[in-house]
Amino acid sequence: MEESSIEESVASVLEEAKELQEAVSGHISKTSSDEQPLRQRALRLDSRIHSLRSSLDSLLSNKLIPHSLADKLDEDLQRARCIIVDGDASSLLPGHAQGSFLRMFLGPINVRASRKDVQLKVKEEYNSYRDRTALLFLLFPAILLILRSWIWAGCLPAFPVQIYQAWLLFLYTGLALRENILRVNGSDIRPWWIYHHYCAMVMALVSLTWEIKGQPDCAKKQRGVQLFLQWAMMQGVAMLLQNRYQRQRLYTRIALGKAKRMDVVWGETAGVDGQLWLLCPILFILQGFEAYVGLLLLKTTFVGVVAEWQVIFCGVLLVLMAVGNFANTVQTLMVKSRFKAKMRRSKSKQRLD
Amino acid sequence: MEESSIEESVASVLEEAKELQEAVSGHISKTSSDEQPLRQRALRLDSRIHSLRSSLDSLLSNKLIPHSLADKLDEDLQRARCIIVDGDASSLLPGHAQGSFLRMFLGPINVRASRKDVQLKVKEEYNSYRDRTALLFLLFPAILLILRSWIWAGCLPAFPVQIYQAWLLFLYTGLALRENILRVNGSDIRPWWIYHHYCAMVMALVSLTWEIKGQPDCAKKQRGVQLFLQWAMMQGVAMLLQNRYQRQRLYTRIALGKAKRMDVVWGETAGVDGQLWLLCPILFILQGFEAYVGLLLLKTTFVGVVAEWQVIFCGVLLVLMAVGNFANTVQTLMVKSRFKAKMRRSKSKQRLD
Repeated sequence: MEESSIEESVASVLEEAKELQEAVSGHISKTSSDEQPLRQRALRLDSRIHSLRSSLDSLLSNKLIPHSLADKLDEDLQRARCIIVDGDASSLLPGHAQGSFLRMFLGPINVRASRKDVQLKVKEEYNSYRDRTALLFLLFPAILLILRSWIWAGCLPAFPVQIYQAWLLFLYTGLALRENILRVNGSDIRPWWIYHHYCAMVMALVSLTWEIKGQPDCAKKQRGVQLFLQWAMMQGVAMLLQNRYQRQRLYTRIALGKAKRMDVVWGETAGVDGQLWLLCPILFILQGFEAYVGLLLLKTTFVGVVAEWQVIFCGVLLVLMAVGNFANTVQTLMVKSRFKAKMRRSKSKQRLD
Repeated sequence: MEESSIEESVASVLEEAKELQEAVSGHISKTSSDEQPLRQRALRLDSRIHSLRSSLDSLLSNKLIPHSLADKLDEDLQRARCIIVDGDASSLLPGHAQGSFLRMFLGPINVRASRKDVQLKVKEEYNSYRDRTALLFLLFPAILLILRSWIWAGCLPAFPVQIYQAWLLFLYTGLALRENILRVNGSDIRPWWIYHHYCAMVMALVSLTWEIKGQPDCAKKQRGVQLFLQWAMMQGVAMLLQNRYQRQRLYTRIALGKAKRMDVVWGETAGVDGQLWLLCPILFILQGFEAYVGLLLLKTTFVGVVAEWQVIFCGVLLVLMAVGNFANTVQTLMVKSRFKAKMRRSKSKQRLD
């Protein structure tokens, strides 16, 4: 390349860069001004659906319209809401605000995906992450307990247990961050399950500072750790089952969404009723065991074998988590059964029609 | 509201929801198809700038063009690049890929801000976060050390030290996440500083499992902890100074960016040269002290007072971090001085012209 030609090329590149900057900034401002009326339409529509639902409720309670019509109109309103919330318009509606947990770790960056298919992908990845960790959740404590009785002669060495506790801390932090991100993206995950993971994070952190005592009298001193590992194994099983249930629900949603987007909500409990009957007893047993481990930990401090603050703290936290888990599982079940009763009613009515 | 009017309203709402879904999905596909040619223009321009720069270098090394012209053309190319990278077009260019650290904690969510002013806001918030933590970094260990000699009679209790270590773990995790996010958003932060925070995270985690021994012989057993706290205080001072320096650089950039966007790069070292002379010696002293603390920790294990693996691990890690910090600070200084020499040369030439 010669002197004159490179001079020309550089000048043209500089010119082109300026033009590109103009074009891109024009494109950005045009996109956001096109978006504005759509956003307002979505907000107006959303508030109209809310007000129609409340006037429908008042009409029904004053017996001004028949039950069958009210059910049909309610169904239509739900459909309209599904179209907005599960469709592309959902990116225009304000989601859950980014809470202080995300702000604390990530700063003010926006983690809301602007397209619905990306949001579904994030949820799918979250489920597969849970799957992978559930397996480890089962295997890690199992291996520790097996080695304890086969090789370590009933006395766990500190290092592998601490690796396990550090892994738990990392795992729960990742889960809490992902769940917060899902919530920002419009997921209806119950806040309790996120609080539960905050508690679990704190417990993993506290357990790291908890000295793993060795011989003599190892079995007695390590009773708390042993119980904790057994509980963790049971939680692994429950997580695997829960994941299968959740995954099937999501796949049903996506499949239905492709077929006919507005019918999405009707598929929510399709094909997974059988598994719920297996899942619930296991969840309740697990919650009972969680409270039992917590109480045993508290008992060891009163008997006086181990008198560290970490033991009391973990004991109280486990009991609180068990109570919260129980209350929230019951609430979820009640919502589901109410929903199913409604569906049965509307189906039998359709048959009558 | 009457029966017939609510039926009509619900039907119209359902219809409107369908129309809105159509409109929004049309808007989204139109936006992305409008973006496509702009993205290609940006990519083409970026690669043209690269190839022009390399042909400019080869012309210069073969002495086919005079120095003064090469400097001018180089300046123009840098301007063109600034327009793309610091302007709105930057959102169209591929940034640093989201690394495995972010993926591990957050999953596949995109943390790239699509607009340049948001990216600058993220950076500003990162700096103010560093500022807030730097103060705590100074105060927290200072208070621990003061209480140690005034109230605790030379023997630190375990609980406050563990709170401090847990806070360090949280702090470094937050910093590492934010720096990864900045990198995705086009920041040119050196990878070493992020690795450094990974190391610090691991060290905080390990130190949590490190038993804080009490009486008797407390002063000797806690020598490592005491040294660590002193080092942390010095780091607080260095962080405060570093933050002031970085902040001034960013403000210069933003101010220049508003005045004349393409000149941004020239403001990089404006008005902060004086502070660099204060910052560098402090950084080097700190790095020397870091290595010294690491070596002292290793020495205590050989003398045999404390023989836990955590002490050896932290010692080795501190020495490695000190060496890495030193190498990277020197490299940064060399880049800066080369840049300044070039600027001086081009300025003196302008005066001759």
